[in-house]
Formats: sequence, structure tokens, C-alpha cells
Amino acid sequence: MEKKNNFEVLRALLERRDYHALQAILAEENEVDIAEFMEELTSEQATVVFRTLPKELAAEVFSNLSPENQEAILAAATDQELSAIVEELYVDDAVDMLEELPANVVKRVLKNARPETRKLINQFLNYPENSVGSIMTAEFMDLKKSMTVAEAIAHIRRTGEDSESIYTCYVTDHARRLEGVITVRELLIAKDEQKVEDLMETDVITAETTEDQEEAVSRMMKYDFISMPVVDKENRLVGIVTVDDGMDVMEEEATEDFEKMAAMAPSEKPYLKTSAFTLAKHRIVWLLVLMISGMITGGILGQYEAAFAAMPLLVTFIPMLTDTGGNAGSQSSTLIIRGMAVGEIQLKDFMKVFWKELRVSMMVGVVLSAVNFVRLIITYPGNEMIALTVALALFVTVLLAKTVGGVLPMAAKLFHADPAIMAAPLITTIVDAISLIVYFNIATALLPL
Amino acid sequence: MEKKNNFEVLRALLERRDYHALQAILAEENEVDIAEFMEELTSEQATVVFRTLPKELAAEVFSNLSPENQEAILAAATDQELSAIVEELYVDDAVDMLEELPANVVKRVLKNARPETRKLINQFLNYPENSVGSIMTAEFMDLKKSMTVAEAIAHIRRTGEDSESIYTCYVTDHARRLEGVITVRELLIAKDEQKVEDLMETDVITAETTEDQEEAVSRMMKYDFISMPVVDKENRLVGIVTVDDGMDVMEEEATEDFEKMAAMAPSEKPYLKTSAFTLAKHRIVWLLVLMISGMITGGILGQYEAAFAAMPLLVTFIPMLTDTGGNAGSQSSTLIIRGMAVGEIQLKDFMKVFWKELRVSMMVGVVLSAVNFVRLIITYPGNEMIALTVALALFVTVLLAKTVGGVLPMAAKLFHADPAIMAAPLITTIVDAISLIVYFNIATALLPL
Repeated sequence: MEKKNNFEVLRALLERRDYHALQAILAEENEVDIAEFMEELTSEQATVVFRTLPKELAAEVFSNLSPENQEAILAAATDQELSAIVEELYVDDAVDMLEELPANVVKRVLKNARPETRKLINQFLNYPENSVGSIMTAEFMDLKKSMTVAEAIAHIRRTGEDSESIYTCYVTDHARRLEGVITVRELLIAKDEQKVEDLMETDVITAETTEDQEEAVSRMMKYDFISMPVVDKENRLVGIVTVDDGMDVMEEEATEDFEKMAAMAPSEKPYLKTSAFTLAKHRIVWLLVLMISGMITGGILGQYEAAFAAMPLLVTFIPMLTDTGGNAGSQSSTLIIRGMAVGEIQLKDFMKVFWKELRVSMMVGVVLSAVNFVRLIITYPGNEMIALTVALALFVTVLLAKTVGGVLPMAAKLFHADPAIMAAPLITTIVDAISLIVYFNIATALLPL
Repeated sequence: MEKKNNFEVLRALLERRDYHALQAILAEENEVDIAEFMEELTSEQATVVFRTLPKELAAEVFSNLSPENQEAILAAATDQELSAIVEELYVDDAVDMLEELPANVVKRVLKNARPETRKLINQFLNYPENSVGSIMTAEFMDLKKSMTVAEAIAHIRRTGEDSESIYTCYVTDHARRLEGVITVRELLIAKDEQKVEDLMETDVITAETTEDQEEAVSRMMKYDFISMPVVDKENRLVGIVTVDDGMDVMEEEATEDFEKMAAMAPSEKPYLKTSAFTLAKHRIVWLLVLMISGMITGGILGQYEAAFAAMPLLVTFIPMLTDTGGNAGSQSSTLIIRGMAVGEIQLKDFMKVFWKELRVSMMVGVVLSAVNFVRLIITYPGNEMIALTVALALFVTVLLAKTVGGVLPMAAKLFHADPAIMAAPLITTIVDAISLIVYFNIATALLPL
């Protein structure tokens, strides 16, 4: 795996225009590595490299390229080359590609596809974003239940070349309705004369085309499947979701959650490929909303102007108080949001979560308040009442922050909103306001203001 | 998939002690579903259900049970049953189980395992946590390069029953050194008389036993593998990592990042199964650290006591200013930390990130400051200089927050620290301190204090 050295060799051959040697080396390389190499070239060079690849490898490399390079290659391709590319690609990869391309290129690609391919692609393009349909693969291995094991294996050996994933075979009837599922492993360890019908699993776990991709993938994970059948409303088998696409979905969904939980609109492209303007756009809405909430907190603070005019020292504890409240709350909300995302926490656990956060916040609150109290007694000797005020306010803040942080994401889910909305930034803002009210009320009660 | 109904039926049979009917239904069920059903029973009931299962299914169900139920079943098992369970389990599942059990149970289980099994388990138990060795599977399909396709397929059919994952076959020499890799799909679509040697891929992408599991899994994902060979320092094949275990690692690592980024020590068990005391322990350290930083910020604020004693209105803008700074910074740090975790951002992109965050923060800063300025002019007519102070301070805060938030996680990585440490909570604390200094310095310059 001394890839970097290898890239140097390839680049040297390219610059020497020794396409013959280049071709020989590339034919032995992994498609992912070739795509990575091409990403470092100019789009003219990438197009040259692409043309040296054997047809099947070319399609595999193509589906691993960035949209920019795909577009460059398509733009330089003749109609015939275009047709070869789109026919060799698996339908899901073709669709992924077309979704990123400008309309005129899409039109040209579709024009050069065979009518059946075009129909299939159009169908796939119509599935809503984030639906199972939008990530499924059209090529799968189907068997008939009347086959013997020997016949089934022979069938797989004959037709396996065209399927992305052959290890789980689907048994369908004449109307393409899904009747059962059998793995290649089960076929291989069975006896030749056994019937598929007797071996197949009939209680099949499926996904529906319009179902949310995240749900389908978490079901796939639960059952450790390497592919999952996708059916339409009439239980007709229309495609499969493969585990590698499932992993991509998982990674994307986790990234989306990270973004949402840091108060951003989720982005579709990687950070480095997103323009500064788009990034700014994704961030500004929530910043504005939270800034306005911050102003409201400021308004609350304004009510106590007399208090901190009389005792300016009180103001210096505000950052510590609001920061700790925010941190305590976001710890809780993060755990609950993530727990719900991976299915470990359900709505029915509401009371358990509430009770657990209450106990945790008591323990944490007592420790933090005690540390604070001691520190204030030492720093400001003779001001016991101020120390008590701060310690008490801190305790109540932690208690509120953690219960609010634990409970609000679940409340959001209850009202069918995305729990991630109740993440750190919003929790912090809410807790800030509450903690300041608590702080100054305790202060006015305990101190001579 | 009307599982809930099915559970009712099963429960009724269990209560009627109709073990015969229970056995018949369970034999047809998926192991994951049976385990889920057992989790809802008392441990006595679960043990009864477990005993009705056929041996192989029993092992599969067992590896899907919670540690609590595993322990209960093992405690109730005779030595002979114990031996049957441990021998039927795949080694990685056996190891997962043993890691969760009390020492006396582990001892009893190991005593009842065959010597070879015991040796293997002990070897696996020695791999460090989070290493590839700790998640790998010992059962894999190995072939010899001298085999023909027909011989290889016959070999797989004869021995496939004992391997968890047969779809990628590994070609080893007499010393178990890895020579090549070939998929079952490639074997099946090849001709019977072709040689494995001529078909196999020799440039094998591997993982090492001591490598970090996260790195190995992200390589697996990059190449869309359904299993990856694990070798020792002498390139001897010792196991494989399967894609389902890879997905679990991905999910765990994402969860760990969520926890770290919300200033918590990562937990090993699901939230609902973690005690309040453990949760509190995981949260308190960072809360203390951040609270003390908050005190420092308070100290900084104390230096300007004269300023806000003279003009208490200034204090009311503090929450808005620090909240917005914190949010702006954590947006940036979250994107960068996640981008590094999934490999989209590398250290060499440092200047790109810096430049991008600078431009984004300018755009965002201008909008937020403008909104604030207009709002303050309207709310406090005649106080243009105060409005200007707040708007300017906000602009500088956003600028600093975003560049600091973008750059610090990369700096952490540069010094081989975990970038997740530079997440929202710490960034917020740092930005708070800076923004307050900026605010009061601008205030003292512009206002008659």
C-alpha cells in the first residue's frame, strides 16, 4: 500500500505520455485508488487517464469520482463513449451522478442511454431525497422457488456478472412479488438436490421504496444484513439496498446530526468543496434566531440593573453561571438526542430519563456548588452571603439545565419535530435566561440590594 | 413483521407451558427477534425459552442478548450446556460476552471450553480495547492458490458451515501468510478449470491486529469491503473484520464523538443502562474544568467593574454577545472536527480552512452586526455610540470565534491530541473571555466612561 509512491510513478508515465505502461499498471489497481489518483490531476489529464481504462473498470472508477471530474469526462466524451459509460454503471451510481450534473449534460446522457436504462433511471430520479428508493440498487440476483440448489448455483454462475451484490438471493413469483430470501452461503452448504423452496426464509424483512433511508438502514444494522430487499406497495421486488450504501447513509446521517446540533443547516457537499457563501448561508439563520433570544435574555438582565449597579461584583459571576448551565444542559441533551437517533431511548422512557437526569444533576450540582462556595469564601472573605447566593444559583441552574436538556429533545420528538433542534445552542439560550432570573432573585432575597 | 402480536402469542405459549408449540415457532424466527423477545421476559423465563432452541440458533440468539441475560443463562447452565454454548459461538462473540461477565463466570466458561477454543479466546482477550484484534472474527474461509475454481467451490461447500463470513476468501501459504484474496462472486462467475492463483487479487488491503479499529473500519468503508483480512506483524492471517462489526464500530465512534464534543467522558453502556452515579462521574470533570475557566472570564470582567457601574446598560448585552460568539465558534469547530473524523479535512488543509472561516465569519459578522445596530438604534434612540460599540464588538467576536473554532481543532490534531477536545464547550469558554475583553475595550474607547 505504498500508494503515494505509486501515484508518482503513474504521474511520471502520464507526463511522458507512455500510455501503454500506464494502462498496464492501472488495469491492476483498485478502482478507489485510481479515482483518488485522478482527483489530483487536471481535468484534461483525468480524461486521458480515464480513456486508458478497460470498460468495466472505467465504470467502477467513474462512480468513485467527484462530480466535477465526472462532468469533465462526460463533457469530453463522444456520444458513443457516453452511452458505454451510462450502460456500464449500476443504476444507483448513474442516478447519483445525474443528480449532481447540470441539466444539459443530464439530457445528453439520457439521450445516449438505451430506452430501458433511461426508464429505470427516470424512475429512480423520482424517488424523494432520503428515501430508500433513492439509495437502492436495481441489479440483484433473483431465483425461482422451484429451482434445486444445483440449478440455483448454475443460474448465479451464469448471471452473476451483472449484479452488484449476489450474496443474498431473492425468490420471486411470476409477478415479481417477493416470496423468500436465501443466501449464497446457505445454497453452497446445502445439497445439490435440495429445493430452494424448502431452504428459503419466507418471513422476509424488507424496506419500502418511500420509507426513510435512515430507518431502513438501522433495520439492516439490527439484523446484520449485507443487503436488504426493497419492495413497492404491492410487495413487488424493485431493488436492494447494499451494506456499503447503508454505511454511507449512516455516516451522512451522523454528520447531519452533528451539523444540526451545532445550529447549522445540514450541507450536502464536503466542507472543503462548499463555498464560503453557502457555508455562511447555512449558519446565519440559527445565529440570528439565537442572537435574538440572547437579546431577550439581555432584556431580562435589564430588569435587575439596580441590583448590579448597587453591587457590580455580582456581574462577574454571570459568565461562570451561564457557561456551566449551558454545558450541563448540552451534556444531557446530546446524550438523549444521540440515544434516540440510535434507537436506545424511546418516548416511553420519558420518566426514566427525567428521573435519571434529576439524580445526576443533584450529584453534579452539589459538587460544583461546593467547589464554588469554598472558592468564593477564600477569594472574598467576609462575603459569605454572596458565596451562598452564587452556590445556590449554580445548584438550581445545573438542576434545571439537566432536566430541561434531558426532557426537551423528547418533547420535540413527541410533537414530531426533530429532536436535534433541542441541542446545545437552544438549550444554552433557554438555560441562560432561566439561570439569570434565578440568580438575581436569590440575590435580591439574600443580599442587601 | 407483526412482531408485537407474535410476542403476545409466544408469551401465551410460555405461560401455558406449551414448550412444544413454542419450540416450533421459535425455530422459524430470526435470532435478533428472539433475543428481543427474551429481553422482555424475566431471566427465569428467558432461560426456559433459551433451552427450547436448537443448538446453532441458540448460539446466534445468545450473542444478541444483553450481558444481564447472558449471565443469567450461563449461571443456570450445566457444565455440558456451557461447553456447548461456548463452542458454538463465534470467537469474537464469545470474547464480547466474556468481557462483560464477572470473573467467576468467565473462569467457569473457560474451564468448559476445549483447549484450542480456550487458547483462541485468551489470545483475543489480550488485544487492546479499540484495536482491530478486539473486533475481529477468527472464522474465515481460506483457500490455496493451487486450487482450481471447481476445487475452491467444492472446498467452500464442504467447510462453509463453520465460517461467519465466506464471501471473501483468503489465499494463504503453508505458513498462513496472506498471498491473495478472491471473492465468492469472482469464483462463481469464473470457469471451473481456472486457477485461483490466476484470478486472485494479490495487492491485498489489510489491517493489523494492533491498529486502531476506527482507522481500519474507515478503510473498509472507503473500499466498500464486506470483510477485511487482519494480519500480524509477520503478515500471517489471523482473522477478519466483517462489515456488520464495522458498522457497529462506526456507530460507537460517532457516539463517542458526540459525547466528547459535549464535554463528557465517553460511556460504554447505553444511557438507560448506565447508573446515575456513573453518568455524573462522566460529566463532572469537564464541568469543573469549564467552570474554573468561567471564573477566569469572571475575573476579566471584574477589571471593568468601573465601566458597568457607570453604565449598567452595557451588562445587558453580555449574554447576547457571549452566546453568539459561542454559537458561531462551535459551528466552525463542529464542522472541522467532523470533517477530520470522516477524513474529508486533513492537516495540510489548514490554510484553506483558515481562509474559508475568515470569509464566512466576515459575511456572518456583517449581517449579525447590522441587525444588532438597527435594533439598538430603534430600542435606545439617541444612543448611537452604544449601538456602534455593541455592533463592533459583535463583529470582532464572530470573526475571532469562527477562526479560533476552525483552527484550534486542527492545532490539537497537529499536537496529536484528540480534536474533539476543541469542541463547542471549550471554544465557547475561550471565545467568551476574548469577546468580553474586546467589548469593554471598545466601550472604554468609544463611550464616556
